[in-house]
Amino acid sequence: MSLIAPVVDRIVETAILEDMGWGDITTELLVPDSLQAHGSFLMKADGVLAGLEVAGLVFLKVDPSLVFTPLKRDGDRVKKGDVVATVRGSAAGILKAERTALNFLQRLSGTATLTAKFVEIVAGLKTRVSETRKTTPGLRYLEKYAVRVGGGINHRHHLGDGILIKDNHLVALYRAGLSLRDIIDKAKKNAPHTLKVEVEVTSIPDAVTAAEAGADIILLDNMSPEEMRKAVEAVAGRVKLEASGGINLENARVIAETGVDIISVGALTHSARALDISLELEYE
Amino acid sequence: MSLIAPVVDRIVETAILEDMGWGDITTELLVPDSLQAHGSFLMKADGVLAGLEVAGLVFLKVDPSLVFTPLKRDGDRVKKGDVVATVRGSAAGILKAERTALNFLQRLSGTATLTAKFVEIVAGLKTRVSETRKTTPGLRYLEKYAVRVGGGINHRHHLGDGILIKDNHLVALYRAGLSLRDIIDKAKKNAPHTLKVEVEVTSIPDAVTAAEAGADIILLDNMSPEEMRKAVEAVAGRVKLEASGGINLENARVIAETGVDIISVGALTHSARALDISLELEYE
Amino acid sequence: MSLIAPVVDRIVETAILEDMGWGDITTELLVPDSLQAHGSFLMKADGVLAGLEVAGLVFLKVDPSLVFTPLKRDGDRVKKGDVVATVRGSAAGILKAERTALNFLQRLSGTATLTAKFVEIVAGLKTRVSETRKTTPGLRYLEKYAVRVGGGINHRHHLGDGILIKDNHLVALYRAGLSLRDIIDKAKKNAPHTLKVEVEVTSIPDAVTAAEAGADIILLDNMSPEEMRKAVEAVAGRVKLEASGGINLENARVIAETGVDIISVGALTHSARALDISLELEYE
Amino acid sequence: MSLIAPVVDRIVETAILEDMGWGDITTELLVPDSLQAHGSFLMKADGVLAGLEVAGLVFLKVDPSLVFTPLKRDGDRVKKGDVVATVRGSAAGILKAERTALNFLQRLSGTATLTAKFVEIVAGLKTRVSETRKTTPGLRYLEKYAVRVGGGINHRHHLGDGILIKDNHLVALYRAGLSLRDIIDKAKKNAPHTLKVEVEVTSIPDAVTAAEAGADIILLDNMSPEEMRKAVEAVAGRVKLEASGGINLENARVIAETGVDIISVGALTHSARALDISLELEYE
Amino acid sequence: MSLIAPVVDRIVETAILEDMGWGDITTELLVPDSLQAHGSFLMKADGVLAGLEVAGLVFLKVDPSLVFTPLKRDGDRVKKGDVVATVRGSAAGILKAERTALNFLQRLSGTATLTAKFVEIVAGLKTRVSETRKTTPGLRYLEKYAVRVGGGINHRHHLGDGILIKDNHLVALYRAGLSLRDIIDKAKKNAPHTLKVEVEVTSIPDAVTAAEAGADIILLDNMSPEEMRKAVEAVAGRVKLEASGGINLENARVIAETGVDIISVGALTHSARALDISLELEYE
Amino acid sequence: MSLIAPVVDRIVETAILEDMGWGDITTELLVPDSLQAHGSFLMKADGVLAGLEVAGLVFLKVDPSLVFTPLKRDGDRVKKGDVVATVRGSAAGILKAERTALNFLQRLSGTATLTAKFVEIVAGLKTRVSETRKTTPGLRYLEKYAVRVGGGINHRHHLGDGILIKDNHLVALYRAGLSLRDIIDKAKKNAPHTLKVEVEVTSIPDAVTAAEAGADIILLDNMSPEEMRKAVEAVAGRVKLEASGGINLENARVIAETGVDIISVGALTHSARALDISLELEYE
Repeated sequence: MSLIAPVVDRIVETAILEDMGWGDITTELLVPDSLQAHGSFLMKADGVLAGLEVAGLVFLKVDPSLVFTPLKRDGDRVKKGDVVATVRGSAAGILKAERTALNFLQRLSGTATLTAKFVEIVAGLKTRVSETRKTTPGLRYLEKYAVRVGGGINHRHHLGDGILIKDNHLVALYRAGLSLRDIIDKAKKNAPHTLKVEVEVTSIPDAVTAAEAGADIILLDNMSPEEMRKAVEAVAGRVKLEASGGINLENARVIAETGVDIISVGALTHSARALDISLELEYE
Repeated sequence: MSLIAPVVDRIVETAILEDMGWGDITTELLVPDSLQAHGSFLMKADGVLAGLEVAGLVFLKVDPSLVFTPLKRDGDRVKKGDVVATVRGSAAGILKAERTALNFLQRLSGTATLTAKFVEIVAGLKTRVSETRKTTPGLRYLEKYAVRVGGGINHRHHLGDGILIKDNHLVALYRAGLSLRDIIDKAKKNAPHTLKVEVEVTSIPDAVTAAEAGADIILLDNMSPEEMRKAVEAVAGRVKLEASGGINLENARVIAETGVDIISVGALTHSARALDISLELEYE
Repeated sequence: MSLIAPVVDRIVETAILEDMGWGDITTELLVPDSLQAHGSFLMKADGVLAGLEVAGLVFLKVDPSLVFTPLKRDGDRVKKGDVVATVRGSAAGILKAERTALNFLQRLSGTATLTAKFVEIVAGLKTRVSETRKTTPGLRYLEKYAVRVGGGINHRHHLGDGILIKDNHLVALYRAGLSLRDIIDKAKKNAPHTLKVEVEVTSIPDAVTAAEAGADIILLDNMSPEEMRKAVEAVAGRVKLEASGGINLENARVIAETGVDIISVGALTHSARALDISLELEYE
Repeated sequence: MSLIAPVVDRIVETAILEDMGWGDITTELLVPDSLQAHGSFLMKADGVLAGLEVAGLVFLKVDPSLVFTPLKRDGDRVKKGDVVATVRGSAAGILKAERTALNFLQRLSGTATLTAKFVEIVAGLKTRVSETRKTTPGLRYLEKYAVRVGGGINHRHHLGDGILIKDNHLVALYRAGLSLRDIIDKAKKNAPHTLKVEVEVTSIPDAVTAAEAGADIILLDNMSPEEMRKAVEAVAGRVKLEASGGINLENARVIAETGVDIISVGALTHSARALDISLELEYE
Repeated sequence: MSLIAPVVDRIVETAILEDMGWGDITTELLVPDSLQAHGSFLMKADGVLAGLEVAGLVFLKVDPSLVFTPLKRDGDRVKKGDVVATVRGSAAGILKAERTALNFLQRLSGTATLTAKFVEIVAGLKTRVSETRKTTPGLRYLEKYAVRVGGGINHRHHLGDGILIKDNHLVALYRAGLSLRDIIDKAKKNAPHTLKVEVEVTSIPDAVTAAEAGADIILLDNMSPEEMRKAVEAVAGRVKLEASGGINLENARVIAETGVDIISVGALTHSARALDISLELEYE
Repeated sequence: MSLIAPVVDRIVETAILEDMGWGDITTELLVPDSLQAHGSFLMKADGVLAGLEVAGLVFLKVDPSLVFTPLKRDGDRVKKGDVVATVRGSAAGILKAERTALNFLQRLSGTATLTAKFVEIVAGLKTRVSETRKTTPGLRYLEKYAVRVGGGINHRHHLGDGILIKDNHLVALYRAGLSLRDIIDKAKKNAPHTLKVEVEVTSIPDAVTAAEAGADIILLDNMSPEEMRKAVEAVAGRVKLEASGGINLENARVIAETGVDIISVGALTHSARALDISLELEYE
């Protein structure tokens, strides 16, 4: 579950520049350079951690002399009151980096925690949890990392690494006189051999057609659990089934119990609440 | 409430590259270049719009021949069922840009809508609503814009454009033997003349000291409404009072009624839910 | 076969800055600003064109007043002596942009032409031609475009959009006590549902094992045509077969006739010769 | 023959991001973090090495804990079977960086090797070998380095660091009524004193005129060896003579024997074949 | 008075790339890699140092093996003949970085020295010295640092971190029928609570109105010392007074003696002369 | 004397972002979007204009609807009171861009004006005026443009486009046992054929040696006019002579009269004073 250094470097640098602006004037005016401090990252809520490495990188980039020590690892379940990392060194350095480090840690832990809740709800079933492309502009790489950390699997990263024929494509192609079968045939025939073909369907017959035409994945969009179950009966085993649309913590179990292989949940990234974590400072 | 072109350009380009990857393979394989479409941005929920201009920019950058027409303006209150903008032109172009445009529009409208709820709750009082520095890394500029659009006012943008002496600074300085009065004196004496000095206090006597020392703003951190009211009585008029910490839609009115000038709410940016908006396509 | 504007913009800008340096001193010293010219892109060899749009973008970025008119399209087969595009306008502008435009056009056409030769050699068979990751650093996006233009299909774009278990992975995993079956099981079980699993094999039994374990694609590395034929007999239909390693214009037909689905050819990108094209200028 | 760190850093980072995409999913799914490996860069062909330092930088940037040890130096002639460098450390790190490192090393060694062949062919003569501006967009800096490593000398880097009056300039200026003498006078008079003036000629009288007018270098474009010899007789000693156009390994010696000072060869950069090098991994 | 690493990194890298171009050809041709040198930064004039840290960063980025040792600190007053820093290591590395390091050091010391002269001239008075937005494009961050180093205080950094209503705004607003009082009221009412409101006035009555309306700072533009004194009498104590326009070393004391709080001087950044400093090399 | 669009684009964008920060809060709070204005760039001093095109680009990038009309051209001599350009359109747009546009225009005109003064002082002589590498970090491209605009010629742009053997190189090479003759021979033998070799000398015999060894340019560093005259007598005609070191408006004529070909003046870029220009706004 590692992160790629140059990708994360750029995101972190952008964030530091954004929060630092022309310099931390308060700290520079008041806090002596020689003052040493020791900070503890304290959980104010239960959840799953994500972003410790990113938080550490923030401190390193702001002040390379700071020592950041993770006490937990990304993916660990933690409780309110746990200390999950410490940072030690120049008080001025810690004060400058604090907010940016927390912004990453809280937000990514929020997504990991929400993902873990969905994973827990479907525990014991074969269904896996995935995010969508409804991510925060500029943070997709890290948000997808947080989904993996929370126990989910990633959907395609962008428009270029998977073929997903959605309703808006289908409507256009139907108008051009193609049948669902034609469309999938065309996609399969022309697609790069390394990419899967996924197609969105809204009825059982269409699901059957898609499976017969060789689609690799079928997206069941906004179907009722009853219909999903029928779709599973009709095509499971021949093709992966993904449920999407309006899935929440209340209905996830019921949907997973229909036998679909994946549930994809936009809220993991577009509406996760930040996990509350604070940095408690002591001076030396 | 305008946006600065080069700043937004960079954010939007990053988002497009992130979502496009190596190209929209689905659309390229299936959708004929000549197909024309007409899309309607349809509200799936009530709220306050923010990001129409940004969404339009996404379409323009992906395909300059597309025509994006806003029917509403940022800041407008809209209802479920409203069509707030249209886009017309190459179906392929629209399909490629759709998700990125919606990601901006939904997320920024989410923050604007939440801000507007707080503003509404304190309506009739003098209290204004502000965000904090708990923003999404990389999106602060747009999130602060969304707060303004929702009726809020912006707090300092970063560590460089305001002096805010927080608990972590105070603890350090007390240890060094300075009194609150000393600290504020030092800040006032050395600060650039264009910057205000804000100080966080946790007691009424400290609020009084801060006001007497000439602080421009006093931050009442996690005080009870009762204490806030006392602080207002003690110093209002001489200095701006800002309440912060754990403010939510339930307690905002009570807090505002204490007479504080500003409530600053981290959730506006760290935990706003995306506003549900869809793009409905028709082909021509 | 469209190109993504912001991606190409950056590559083209880098190239212009690289070739322009501090300005075209020769042209500035000698060529009057008012001089108008008309240039013709003349084929000095037969081949398949790729990069006309990119060449046009170079002229546009160097001097927006230039008019670049393609007379052919990317993918067209052209003959020595054909004029494939014209550019008209300020002589100084054309002279400044000429070399960079040609560098793109000649190089991309070189790859498209070589790809087309392979495609032609396997004509009539189901085998398709693909490139590898042996691309020019910084130009992969455009080189893969040239492969498509030449009639090939693209392999995975990078390490993130496909699972390809190569010999170096297998050796490591065998040492850890896993069997080929175990390895593929593990990959299938943990992989994101949208990604295919490809595995490299060097024997027929391994190919059979891989097919039974559910690999999506089997890479036959440096096998003899005889062995490939056996592999095809053993597993074709159940799984895609890709031949790789030492494929050239001499042996490509024989390899394709074994029945493999894809031949992947590193030389398309690492050793294609530039196609000879010149710009003939006339002044007005 | 050193490289400039910030320039190479940017090229290498771009290449890593391009090949890594969203992460090496295969390695992350399968290869344990703790697995250590030892890789040997093995020559699969004879040639001249270029790019060892760049390859080492790729490993360093992907995983700073890897130890890359060059056993040869850029410029060394190596034989098939030679091990030219090793890399040791995390197997996952090596697997991620392998392809990008090889892409640089093979390509730059290809240019160095081809340059060395030309240098060898003209050995014993005073003629030196140079490249042209027909370089790969984005890689000119490294390709010119490879030419130096192969024993060549660099031509001007871009349009700004030398005056080269080519046929396309001359045609324009003749039309404006200037003679060759006028043109060179004008260039000499107005050029910055630090820049040389080179002019392309196609006849002996023009070569004589150019020399008399004080051109620093005369470019003999596509002349026959016979004509070149005459040009040398007419002006050598007074001015540098550079032969260009259609020079290949077959005719380079004959051309050099005419007495020209430099032969400039576009193929060094636009059509060099990558030198075959592989990375052989062993696990520890 | 610290600098923010990522901000300075970018400025320094840009400068190195600008001065290095395609490599220091002179040093590479002539200076052996093994040659070691020791350089001394020698003051050729008296002044106040600024930019030692930046100069050190230049050497570090060009050649990480160089050892740069400051013997003085930014802000120190130094005399002609003083050695203020040394650099030791590879002669080639030092020669490559020398000019860029000096360009920063001389220029920033020039601004610091001029600032210190103004500060000295107003010594004993309460008046402080500030720069304006008339900075060098791209260097504002460092120039403002140099002003602080020279004993000045910074004015707002850019258009976003302070409200400054200038003559050009006022003319527009008067035309719209607003009075000065209206304008300041409007600004105070709508401004973010963290920002001060500064207003430019040209008469005593306007200064009084501005003070009464609650402006935080009043800018006295191009007033005579006599008028300034009256303005001070009229409003000092209630509001900060800043004098601007045509302030030079000759008139600064007289202006400060009027009792204004701040004098802001464009020349600190737009017209400071570089301080003469040389690097004396010895070889080892 | 044209500018390269992508180079200037980047410099201008950096400057706009630097001055805009998070937006022009004053203008946004106070100036109605609909207000139209007309601005005149008014000379407050005599001088030579440089940067009108750059200033126009600033307005265009801040607000593409603004119309900037140059009434003069770069290189024109203008008088106090002249209006040199106008800008018309949205008052808000003009107010936002004003300072950045002026910062470029004033600074570049300052360098052009100072260059023109040196050119005027040596009028009637063959001596030309050039700048050095003592430029402002990040602005070298534009500063060198301003020197050309002022009538000067550019020295090498950076370390890569000319060989200049300076005292610090010579000391190192003498220590290694080489004579001046050896050093120049070595440089001439190994240098790319397109680059000139310049060498710094401090005595007449060395100048003679350098000329005989074939140096293209000799730099006379800090010589007295008397010595320069002797150097001219000794070697002029065989080689270009450049005087450098301590040249100012007082001694430039005397130095030029010695017969040197070029005087290079660091102050053109490191210590030019900005030319005073203002923008006078009227509202419509």
